[in-house]
Parts: sequence; structure tokens; C-alpha cells
Amino acid sequence: MDNARPIGVFDSGIGGMTVVRAIMQHLPHENIVYFGDTARVPYGPKSPQVVREYALQDTDVLLKHDVKLIVIACNTVSAVALDVVQKRAKVPVVGVIIPGAEAAVKASAKKRIGIIGTLGTIFSNAYTNAIRQIDPAVKVTGQPCPLFVPLAEEGWIDHKATELIAKEYLFPLTLEKVDTVVLGCTHYPILRKIIQKVLHSDVTLIDSGEATTVAVKKMLKDMHLENTSTQKPNLKFFVSDVPHKFMEIGEQFLGTKLGKVHRVEGFLT
Amino acid sequence: MDNARPIGVFDSGIGGMTVVRAIMQHLPHENIVYFGDTARVPYGPKSPQVVREYALQDTDVLLKHDVKLIVIACNTVSAVALDVVQKRAKVPVVGVIIPGAEAAVKASAKKRIGIIGTLGTIFSNAYTNAIRQIDPAVKVTGQPCPLFVPLAEEGWIDHKATELIAKEYLFPLTLEKVDTVVLGCTHYPILRKIIQKVLHSDVTLIDSGEATTVAVKKMLKDMHLENTSTQKPNLKFFVSDVPHKFMEIGEQFLGTKLGKVHRVEGFLT
Repeated sequence: MDNARPIGVFDSGIGGMTVVRAIMQHLPHENIVYFGDTARVPYGPKSPQVVREYALQDTDVLLKHDVKLIVIACNTVSAVALDVVQKRAKVPVVGVIIPGAEAAVKASAKKRIGIIGTLGTIFSNAYTNAIRQIDPAVKVTGQPCPLFVPLAEEGWIDHKATELIAKEYLFPLTLEKVDTVVLGCTHYPILRKIIQKVLHSDVTLIDSGEATTVAVKKMLKDMHLENTSTQKPNLKFFVSDVPHKFMEIGEQFLGTKLGKVHRVEGFLT
Repeated sequence: MDNARPIGVFDSGIGGMTVVRAIMQHLPHENIVYFGDTARVPYGPKSPQVVREYALQDTDVLLKHDVKLIVIACNTVSAVALDVVQKRAKVPVVGVIIPGAEAAVKASAKKRIGIIGTLGTIFSNAYTNAIRQIDPAVKVTGQPCPLFVPLAEEGWIDHKATELIAKEYLFPLTLEKVDTVVLGCTHYPILRKIIQKVLHSDVTLIDSGEATTVAVKKMLKDMHLENTSTQKPNLKFFVSDVPHKFMEIGEQFLGTKLGKVHRVEGFLT
């Protein structure tokens, strides 16, 4: 069956598993193939040129698995390489920026939105441009938070140091009186509680991965590509490296057991 | 002149510039070629298999510049890939582990040494093994400090959050009553002040990069490879990516202006 072909998801590393988690919840019958470029993670601080090159290689890994649709779980890739991935793939490609931007505009009554993400995502202005295209009247404030990724990977989700760091990073957003903040990095949902605590309690947090999943669901329906099988779906995880603490961190991000993880051989040469 | 050939230094990224800084101080007449694999940094959390593969590629970059000696500035590479680099290069190769271990044993009166480093360096037990080979009576305590690298790159060298994190990481070393701690990562000298503040003030900090430079100086002398020219030395910097904030962070690590930085083309494919 054509529609039983898997959804392909890729990310710079483990973070995209928060997106897989959302897909599993919203689209429980879909088969999924995941690729995480753990040998070269993180993409966030790297130049757009390098990120675009890596994104094409990641796309090729998924295309070998005959995916019916590609989700770019990584915000940095979605911000700087959506066009090249769309050009390479012969299947629909969804990034996390546009669904995240749409959800944010919908949620923001005061039209004041904050974006937090990696250096790459924030410097690209991708969220700002996407939001302005939907509603030019929105005031957007971007804030890179480079320490959030390593803090999430350390599992320091409720640590005093994380709170201190969050206070420093998020202060400019508070000054700007934003009523909505986009978690513009797949790692950040792990720190959701502490981010919500530091921001005013009535600030709405938008999980771009979650928003993207809703977009994917609609797209599959519109294109008649939904998997109608009610069999237990197939989940396959591929990585370019199996780094230290991989299983431990991966399962925290996925929210369940990871099962077998395959290393893509020959990916490094 | 043969002795005018440069010393080659490589690292996973920018951190190794603290070693270049030490070489410039101790060996002011030597030409230096530096390569930082900024397209794939960091190596610390990655598997030994991947780090060994990358280390060989980094070595090849330096060999093209006809270096007379190679310094592996990266602790993770020195810990897991010294043997493969030595086999590949036809010139002497010095890692930071053995010089760091020797300096630590010399400094530790109580024979209680702490090692701080990346996950890769600590899990490899390379420092522990090197120290035990010199003096089996020494008690060694290893502690990975994954957040120190991103904190150093953020430039948060005097931040309350950094102090909190340092307190948590270094507590087990205090419990073990170490009198000497090896800064087993090229980024850590940047955080030296706060590490010293958190540890007892009479704990001796060993900068492996500094210790390695002393070893290089002796080796060049023994092999009659010293550059006798008194001309201003040539410093060349190569990277595999020019990431965000590169110049800013690089100059903080090098302690001086960086000058022109060349991107190694074709390194990614």
C-alpha cells in the first residue's frame, strides 16, 4: 500500500524526537523513519552554508526509505535550508517555522510575539519573516538561547542554574511585553516548565513541533495520503553516531522506549 | 629552511586556540598552522569511533601544510585517537593527556588528583590510565562537565549561573579532597577563575595545553627542530566552517586578534 509508506523526520540530533512524539500522538497509525545527524550535531551555531549542505545529505538518507512526506524537525534547518530540501525531495516537505509562526499569530491577542531559538534560527530572521507575511502588524522579538540545548541534554530541567539562565535570556521578552513565545528549537519543550515559570504565567508557549504535526495531519488528509491501516505502526530510528548517553537522552525526548537504533554506515566519508 | 616548517595544531573547534596562545608565549619564533573542525564541533559527546575518523581527516589537513610536528590540542581526540593519528602522520605527534598527567602528578603532594573534561575524555579514562602509569598510588577522580564548553563559548566567565553549575560539578572533587585538578578540555582555561574560586584556594589547577607546550619545547630542542629564525612568525588559521560569532569567540580564546581565517573547502563532502 502506497499510503503505508513512512513519514520521514530528520533533525541535527536527538531533539527532533520531541516532534516524533507529537506525530505519534496526533497520527497514531503512521509509520515513521527518523534520522538524527548525531555525528555533526549541533547545527544551531553553524553557518547557513554548512547547514544547507548537511540538510541535503540528511534528506538523502530519508529518501532511501521511500518516505511519503518529509518533516524537517530541526528549526535551524527549517530556517535556512527549507528551499534546498524541497528542491531535492520529490515528496512534500514541511518545516517547523511556518506552522509555528501561524500558531503564534493565532494565539497572540496583543500582537507581540517572542521567538527563542539557536543562534542560526534567530539570526536567520525566518520566524520574523514568516510572521510578518501573515500579519505585518505583529511586533516580533527574537532571542538566541544557546545554553538551553546543553541544559536540556544534561537533563537539568528543574535546576536553579537553568532558572537563572532562563531569567537572563527571557528578560528582553518580558520587557517587550510579549503575550506569546515560540519554542523555536526542538530541545526547548523539555524546558517548557521552567520557561513558563520565568515568563509571566499568562504568556502562551507555542511548541513548533506540535504545530507542525497538526499541519502534517491536515496535509496528509488533503492529499489522501493517510495510512488507513490499523496495524501497530513501524518506527525506525537512524543516526550517524551513537554518542555517549544517547539512549538515556533519546528516551527522555521521545517520552517512551527507543527500541533498536541503527547507525547509518558510510555517512561520514 | 627545514626547521622553519610550522607546528601543526588541531582541535575540534575553537578551544585549541588556548593551546596556540600558550605556544606563542613559550615558543615565540615558531610558525603555526591551526585547524579547527568547526563544522562538526563538539567532539566531546561523540563516540570514540566517530572521533577517530574525524581526527584522521583533521591530521590530513595539517599534513598538507608540511608541518614538522603535530599537537593534538583537543583532549577528547588525545584521549581516544592519539594512536591512529601517530600512525597516520610521519612527524612527531603530541597529545595533551600525557603532559597534563605528568604535570598533575608532579604537582600533587597528597596524591589525590581530579580530572574535569568532556564526557568522551572522562569515559575514556585516558587521564586516569596515564596517571596510574606514572604513579599507581595516586587516587584519581574524573568528573564530566558538559556545560562548561557552551558556558565558555557564551562568554559567561563570571556569571552566577556558571558558579552554580561549577559548584555542582566540582562538589565530588571537593569530597575526594583532591589537591590538584586537571583542566582536561581546551575550553576550561577560559573558566579558570571561577573554577579556582569554587574549589579550595590551595587546589592547584593544571592547564593541559600549557603543560603540552612545555613538552613540545623540549621535544623540538631534543630533535634539533627549533626554528632559529628571528623573523616574525607566520600564523595560519584554517577551519571547516565559519560559524556564528566565530571571530568574537576565537579572539577571546587566542587572547589577541585573529587575522585572516581560511575555510578549508571540500572538507565536508
